[in-house]
Amino acid sequence: MSNVRIIGNSLPRMPWENKPEGLEAPIWRHSANPIVPRNPAPGIARIFNSAVAPYEDRFVGVFRAETVNGRPHLSLGWSDDALSWTFDERPIDFVDEEGRPFNPGYAYDPRLVQVEGVYYIIWCTDFYGAAIGLARTEDFKTFVRLENPFLPFNRNGVLFPRKIGGNYVMLSRPSDSGHTPFGDVFLSESPDLVYWGKHRHVMSKGGQGWWQSVKIGGGPAPIETSEGWLMFYHGVTGTCNGLVYSMSAVILDLDEPSKVKYRSANFILTPEEWYEERGFVANVVFPCATLHDADTGRIAIYYGAADTYVGVAYTTAEEIVRYVIETNEIIGDDREIGRM
Amino acid sequence: MSNVRIIGNSLPRMPWENKPEGLEAPIWRHSANPIVPRNPAPGIARIFNSAVAPYEDRFVGVFRAETVNGRPHLSLGWSDDALSWTFDERPIDFVDEEGRPFNPGYAYDPRLVQVEGVYYIIWCTDFYGAAIGLARTEDFKTFVRLENPFLPFNRNGVLFPRKIGGNYVMLSRPSDSGHTPFGDVFLSESPDLVYWGKHRHVMSKGGQGWWQSVKIGGGPAPIETSEGWLMFYHGVTGTCNGLVYSMSAVILDLDEPSKVKYRSANFILTPEEWYEERGFVANVVFPCATLHDADTGRIAIYYGAADTYVGVAYTTAEEIVRYVIETNEIIGDDREIGRM
Amino acid sequence: MSNVRIIGNSLPRMPWENKPEGLEAPIWRHSANPIVPRNPAPGIARIFNSAVAPYEDRFVGVFRAETVNGRPHLSLGWSDDALSWTFDERPIDFVDEEGRPFNPGYAYDPRLVQVEGVYYIIWCTDFYGAAIGLARTEDFKTFVRLENPFLPFNRNGVLFPRKIGGNYVMLSRPSDSGHTPFGDVFLSESPDLVYWGKHRHVMSKGGQGWWQSVKIGGGPAPIETSEGWLMFYHGVTGTCNGLVYSMSAVILDLDEPSKVKYRSANFILTPEEWYEERGFVANVVFPCATLHDADTGRIAIYYGAADTYVGVAYTTAEEIVRYVIETNEIIGDDREIGRM
Amino acid sequence: MSNVRIIGNSLPRMPWENKPEGLEAPIWRHSANPIVPRNPAPGIARIFNSAVAPYEDRFVGVFRAETVNGRPHLSLGWSDDALSWTFDERPIDFVDEEGRPFNPGYAYDPRLVQVEGVYYIIWCTDFYGAAIGLARTEDFKTFVRLENPFLPFNRNGVLFPRKIGGNYVMLSRPSDSGHTPFGDVFLSESPDLVYWGKHRHVMSKGGQGWWQSVKIGGGPAPIETSEGWLMFYHGVTGTCNGLVYSMSAVILDLDEPSKVKYRSANFILTPEEWYEERGFVANVVFPCATLHDADTGRIAIYYGAADTYVGVAYTTAEEIVRYVIETNEIIGDDREIGRM
Amino acid sequence: MSNVRIIGNSLPRMPWENKPEGLEAPIWRHSANPIVPRNPAPGIARIFNSAVAPYEDRFVGVFRAETVNGRPHLSLGWSDDALSWTFDERPIDFVDEEGRPFNPGYAYDPRLVQVEGVYYIIWCTDFYGAAIGLARTEDFKTFVRLENPFLPFNRNGVLFPRKIGGNYVMLSRPSDSGHTPFGDVFLSESPDLVYWGKHRHVMSKGGQGWWQSVKIGGGPAPIETSEGWLMFYHGVTGTCNGLVYSMSAVILDLDEPSKVKYRSANFILTPEEWYEERGFVANVVFPCATLHDADTGRIAIYYGAADTYVGVAYTTAEEIVRYVIETNEIIGDDREIGRM
Amino acid sequence: MSNVRIIGNSLPRMPWENKPEGLEAPIWRHSANPIVPRNPAPGIARIFNSAVAPYEDRFVGVFRAETVNGRPHLSLGWSDDALSWTFDERPIDFVDEEGRPFNPGYAYDPRLVQVEGVYYIIWCTDFYGAAIGLARTEDFKTFVRLENPFLPFNRNGVLFPRKIGGNYVMLSRPSDSGHTPFGDVFLSESPDLVYWGKHRHVMSKGGQGWWQSVKIGGGPAPIETSEGWLMFYHGVTGTCNGLVYSMSAVILDLDEPSKVKYRSANFILTPEEWYEERGFVANVVFPCATLHDADTGRIAIYYGAADTYVGVAYTTAEEIVRYVIETNEIIGDDREIGRM
Repeated sequence: MSNVRIIGNSLPRMPWENKPEGLEAPIWRHSANPIVPRNPAPGIARIFNSAVAPYEDRFVGVFRAETVNGRPHLSLGWSDDALSWTFDERPIDFVDEEGRPFNPGYAYDPRLVQVEGVYYIIWCTDFYGAAIGLARTEDFKTFVRLENPFLPFNRNGVLFPRKIGGNYVMLSRPSDSGHTPFGDVFLSESPDLVYWGKHRHVMSKGGQGWWQSVKIGGGPAPIETSEGWLMFYHGVTGTCNGLVYSMSAVILDLDEPSKVKYRSANFILTPEEWYEERGFVANVVFPCATLHDADTGRIAIYYGAADTYVGVAYTTAEEIVRYVIETNEIIGDDREIGRM
Repeated sequence: MSNVRIIGNSLPRMPWENKPEGLEAPIWRHSANPIVPRNPAPGIARIFNSAVAPYEDRFVGVFRAETVNGRPHLSLGWSDDALSWTFDERPIDFVDEEGRPFNPGYAYDPRLVQVEGVYYIIWCTDFYGAAIGLARTEDFKTFVRLENPFLPFNRNGVLFPRKIGGNYVMLSRPSDSGHTPFGDVFLSESPDLVYWGKHRHVMSKGGQGWWQSVKIGGGPAPIETSEGWLMFYHGVTGTCNGLVYSMSAVILDLDEPSKVKYRSANFILTPEEWYEERGFVANVVFPCATLHDADTGRIAIYYGAADTYVGVAYTTAEEIVRYVIETNEIIGDDREIGRM
Repeated sequence: MSNVRIIGNSLPRMPWENKPEGLEAPIWRHSANPIVPRNPAPGIARIFNSAVAPYEDRFVGVFRAETVNGRPHLSLGWSDDALSWTFDERPIDFVDEEGRPFNPGYAYDPRLVQVEGVYYIIWCTDFYGAAIGLARTEDFKTFVRLENPFLPFNRNGVLFPRKIGGNYVMLSRPSDSGHTPFGDVFLSESPDLVYWGKHRHVMSKGGQGWWQSVKIGGGPAPIETSEGWLMFYHGVTGTCNGLVYSMSAVILDLDEPSKVKYRSANFILTPEEWYEERGFVANVVFPCATLHDADTGRIAIYYGAADTYVGVAYTTAEEIVRYVIETNEIIGDDREIGRM
Repeated sequence: MSNVRIIGNSLPRMPWENKPEGLEAPIWRHSANPIVPRNPAPGIARIFNSAVAPYEDRFVGVFRAETVNGRPHLSLGWSDDALSWTFDERPIDFVDEEGRPFNPGYAYDPRLVQVEGVYYIIWCTDFYGAAIGLARTEDFKTFVRLENPFLPFNRNGVLFPRKIGGNYVMLSRPSDSGHTPFGDVFLSESPDLVYWGKHRHVMSKGGQGWWQSVKIGGGPAPIETSEGWLMFYHGVTGTCNGLVYSMSAVILDLDEPSKVKYRSANFILTPEEWYEERGFVANVVFPCATLHDADTGRIAIYYGAADTYVGVAYTTAEEIVRYVIETNEIIGDDREIGRM
Repeated sequence: MSNVRIIGNSLPRMPWENKPEGLEAPIWRHSANPIVPRNPAPGIARIFNSAVAPYEDRFVGVFRAETVNGRPHLSLGWSDDALSWTFDERPIDFVDEEGRPFNPGYAYDPRLVQVEGVYYIIWCTDFYGAAIGLARTEDFKTFVRLENPFLPFNRNGVLFPRKIGGNYVMLSRPSDSGHTPFGDVFLSESPDLVYWGKHRHVMSKGGQGWWQSVKIGGGPAPIETSEGWLMFYHGVTGTCNGLVYSMSAVILDLDEPSKVKYRSANFILTPEEWYEERGFVANVVFPCATLHDADTGRIAIYYGAADTYVGVAYTTAEEIVRYVIETNEIIGDDREIGRM
Repeated sequence: MSNVRIIGNSLPRMPWENKPEGLEAPIWRHSANPIVPRNPAPGIARIFNSAVAPYEDRFVGVFRAETVNGRPHLSLGWSDDALSWTFDERPIDFVDEEGRPFNPGYAYDPRLVQVEGVYYIIWCTDFYGAAIGLARTEDFKTFVRLENPFLPFNRNGVLFPRKIGGNYVMLSRPSDSGHTPFGDVFLSESPDLVYWGKHRHVMSKGGQGWWQSVKIGGGPAPIETSEGWLMFYHGVTGTCNGLVYSMSAVILDLDEPSKVKYRSANFILTPEEWYEERGFVANVVFPCATLHDADTGRIAIYYGAADTYVGVAYTTAEEIVRYVIETNEIIGDDREIGRM
């Protein structure tokens, strides 16, 4: 393996801290975590599981905001340094393609990705049950909801940052309508963001280790690298006292992204700090977004902590890809194209 | 309401028995039910939940066959009168679009419908969990599996017999990967049978009565009538000793089939006969197909009984549509287009 | 023990069949069971779990009627011989004490008893969950609903046919809001049918045998005898394929009816006939009423079968009381007054 | 709305802290929480979910004390300032109305209220399952247990501080015998504390928000105000890692207290501090008592934290009532009298 | 494969019927099934899941008898033709090795086998939960209970008819204390019937088919044949309306009986007749014993039907062994010695 | 009771801290807990639930090590003071009695005990489900796995440090294959560590208190004292937010160790410190080993905390035995020999 390169844009102003001396792990926490505390804005009790992106000369974020009545919606936030954020007081206001109001009953766990100059928000929405919502914006003022791409019951929709083979590509994790005791990651294609098909199985929960034995779900939009699509994801295990959500990474084939090239047998981050171990839902780290710089290979991962806080962790493309390859484990038919 | 007409073909040779004297119910059983008994062919223990169609001068059927090892597959059957059937010894052999073998791990609850001269089989298949399988044939010799239209977990896929608004239209019932303790009927469209979208909610379980309180699922391909699409479906209720599957009917809007025009508050057939009350799964009637004649309005409904037998019941378009309208009940937002 | 006498009225015209030769069991089925078949009246699919009483020179019954939409209500029926019944087409129409309509959302498993010249109907009603409904009538034309005697969640309310110690006395079986996987019988008193208190535990599920290991519930109104209050009740056991409801009998202390004097260790009737073994809910016998004649000691027990039919069984006070005493089993603190 | 007044007694010596500068929320925590730590007395591991009242020139409390064998009982405590408490070494010793010992098998979550000069303790007791216990005292030396007011299964009994319409009035929350995955609040009346009836549904779990989606339960005895009965209560939501108990408030009609006048859509306190987030049961705030002063409108709320500690929070009648009215949400038929 | 021989005794007087003309299946039902009906003896409601053996010039049986109180015990029965049985009125009376009474709290599903001139009864007993009971008799008058061979929770203990490698050998099926939703067959050895060890895994539930997907359990004592130990066993599958118990057969290695040589992929008998489909537990066939004749290779299988009746089915060693070999399926590590 | 003496060896170099002034409880935590933090060695995320012993002039430990892929294995560790530990990088390498590799699929919760000069490791292993693994070593270089002593499903195997009545004696806790919602402690004997029998019930979950209401399990190897076998064990209770594991102690009869002489009604240690309250599994203290000194009666208890850390607590034989006797509670038939 030659040096691992990120294929993408420069982003020299992204947040960064160097790896602490003596640390073995391939990823390290921001020293001032959590970057978003409890009660971060009037009427909002907790912000977590949220997505950020560079926009013009600032950073923009789509945040899962839980109000004091406990129902989640999506709110915009703005930042100069991607660490200190100002949040809009009102939820994002969606319209349909004719411009009429079209707001979801609830909305959570957003992802945010730019494809061909347009920003897309993907979230968990209520479509007679948990399902994938999809909207586009070009100016972060008007947000147009598109057709729901899939039938319920589904979560963790992740759109790739470019078309592959001429089609849009989305990952998702079908499961049930409750707290989802099972689930694998699938991939689907669309020529037009309206009609979806060519569904493929990508990767399974399970493996030799136990940290991802209950379910898994895609995380931030995949990062194109010289070795393949680098995707951070969450894996969940069960204990007699509840679930534990950890984070790891996988490398998907660039042209056939339903094929796993390498997948770490290990978690790379697991709840250990106070803001990850306790909160509304104990023992959760849940990655939703990255910022990354093609010049340096630096990656900042934004993750929800304990369904209560936002944390940041750092790595480099070189470091994480090498780690995934070195700790590679083949699970089930991950390497197959996933068609049955 | 003027007379109710079936919009479709003549089929004077379909099976028929007149309504028994004095019967109130809008549907009546074939007098020699079950038409397929236990152990109907070598190595096959039970045939049920199956679909039939006229083909050339005979009738053809796609049957759910459970072998003596208990795993379901699909087998062809042939009949001159649609009552007495001869079954192929081997399961249907599917190929992919390049002609390579492409057989499902298991297959059950098939539907069979002709659209623009091509026959389509839709069934419950294993796509890393229960999902909708789709195949086409023109000669009942070569069976080409197409892309799985949806992500798992889904069952009871029902394709309409013609395009609507230029698109293929399919009903399905998303739920979970197990014995499906819940589920409503949705509708999806496709321009090409590869990419699917414009998903709409059609109808909910529930209502004032209890017979459809647990889940519902589409049955035979809808029949086009002067009043709308007539679809028979199953509704399920729970007792302290298990589920009970009954049959009823709904009328969908011809142009916007995600809108329910009328839906009976009542079941029209519920397990009462010995072959419905007992067998591998007690208390099940499960409609999968109809034969119908546009000249007379006659309809023969093929239904699975107790996951063990095939039964037939009769009605006419006039009788069943009038009954549905007279016993109409609006449930939830059935009348809406079902987009959220 | 001297001869067992029923303390009550003569009813020489009640139905009766002598005990079959050679039968050991203390109770025997009517030879023409079921006396109410499936589809007994227009729009009514099944009648079962129902109560009857003599009224003027006929018999009247309050029947659990399940319509073709599967929701239970109460309907009146009339009979000359208490075996062949004619059913009203409409549900019973309840009013409140001011005469305004006051119909339950659903109603099932009625009991019917006369106290001081007034007839009372007790049933399972919806009071933000399953609970006990109570109504009175003097003419079977006007039915006045009284206060619901207890908080939810409760079923199988059974009113005694006379006051004890100056108070009305009711048995009930508190449990949960679903299919009730557990439950014991309690007793409560009221001076006025409005305020209830002095709640006492009467008898427990369980015992050495298994037939009543899951839950129990009172049946017909207790019959006053020289040995105590004779009550038929149902006991339920669980199998890997569902619950089985059997019938037995208990003798309660005349003055302190929360004390069990004798309780049979055995069921006296269990599902064995086709109309008990199969139907909407397999394996259910569920007693709700008796007719009895003080002159002869004859008792006719009316019981629901398989949630589908009505059956009748016969015994005499002498025979059943002796059997209960001979097979007596003390369970838990049945003999205590049941206060904690 | 004119100024909100508390209708009741002066209590100038109650604990108090002014609202912190800049705080938006309508309620604020005592600065030295928790006021009762772990292992507060010999042999007692945790005290929480407890009730206090002024008595003569001191304060008295009835405390849920979990001994080192994990079984809850009720212990008296005494305090001069209602913040620093001394606990009796022995559980409260109950007698029946004849003076004989009559102690509950276990006892938890007490409320304490004075009605017409007599103090009443209401708690969760074992009456063949979880149920409501009731006792009276006039001197905090002799504690007379009365009849259990209701059948099992029930919790969170809350007696009003005065008769309404000549009757005693009690709230309770019927549910099942386990960890109560569901439950609404009901109201019942009694002329004599022996016989109970006129049961009414008061308020439902649910609503637009999610914080009270699983169950709710009454808290301290309602406070009479010029706007109605002010009651603090708990609402519970579920996460994949367990339940979260929050606190909110409701205003009931003065004369018809089964009618909700206003009910906040939001929680007013949710687990955020270390003593609320972790302990024997993580993420619990559970209000059981208030002290309040009619002269100033000040209210001190005593709440259990994490089933491990006692905390105090402050508000004023004016502030909390206005907040409830401003954030009012009608849920189900809260506004109805709740009779079915 | 040469002809299959049974290694054992002659038993020409065993019951027998020839195979019906045209039947494909390798096993056929006795024409007068069930041989034991409901209420076969005073106070006994149902006999099923029972074991028989030749003894002197008659046949003896150990029967699972469910009395009218629903608790199972073991009763002796005697027969001249092994079809028509007379049952003892009293349960078997066990003593311990010192001759003191030592009766089990309950006892069900017995097996009966002769080893070195001593008869052993193995059954499911209560040992702080379901476990294996063991007793010996030489005269069917004195029954000596030995040590319970294993810890709970266990069922379906099956002792081999001779020592192997100098040790007694027993099969069993460890699972849980309830209705056992899972379980594989294990083998254990003992030099003295007191101390047990060398536990080995024999065979797994599962396989390609679905009929044995939930659990399996050994049946009659294995029959020694020239091809190996022939054992009939039950396999269980789940439906949305309960479990279905079918019967099949396996051939174990003669010297290393934890190794499976051949195992049929198919059931050989599944509930189809009225006495198998309905009863106390619907859809059960459960083999517990065989009679077999080494001269002719004839085998009569005694099986419980619907937890209500006893049925008999016939085959020959040649026919069943050939069928098992022809339909052989290797599942998991069946072929291994099963030590981990 | 005279002074309580430990019957065993001197161990003056064991760790020790005197009891803090004023503490009432009979056991106190090491002041520098946890002695093993998170990420204690490369690739190992957490060490907990582990056992230690003196060996030559150092201390040796067998540790449950969870790697970064979440699967547990056993690793050796070495220490001079039994507080500061160095861990081997590789798991323990087991061989069978012929010296061939014989490593378990997973291994957790080890115990370590010396009997007649040989060290035995007992752990939870995978034997077609959770079961007891057993191995011996004499030099901590070669580890020979012996026969698995019992059938699955079992955990918490505890070997006594000497034979009793000529037999080896082991405690275990049979339960199910999952997170074990129930379970009592049993005792078994063996003459040779191969064949096990004479199984006896020792002690039940339950009791008057609630802290051990769900399940219990043996802890460190019992300590022989002048009053009987002193065993620390864990007891588990359930809350609506998960299980809580506490520690207590029991005294077993020296000669008949299935008889409980005394058993504390109370826990002696329950999760209260941050390293016990939060971590991978919140609210767990789980004792696995002791060091003790016969000269002074000092005992150091090693316990896992929150499935994340190792803690130490101290007591003396005198103090803990007196406490157990003073707080003695008889539960069920603990005092019996436990044979049924």
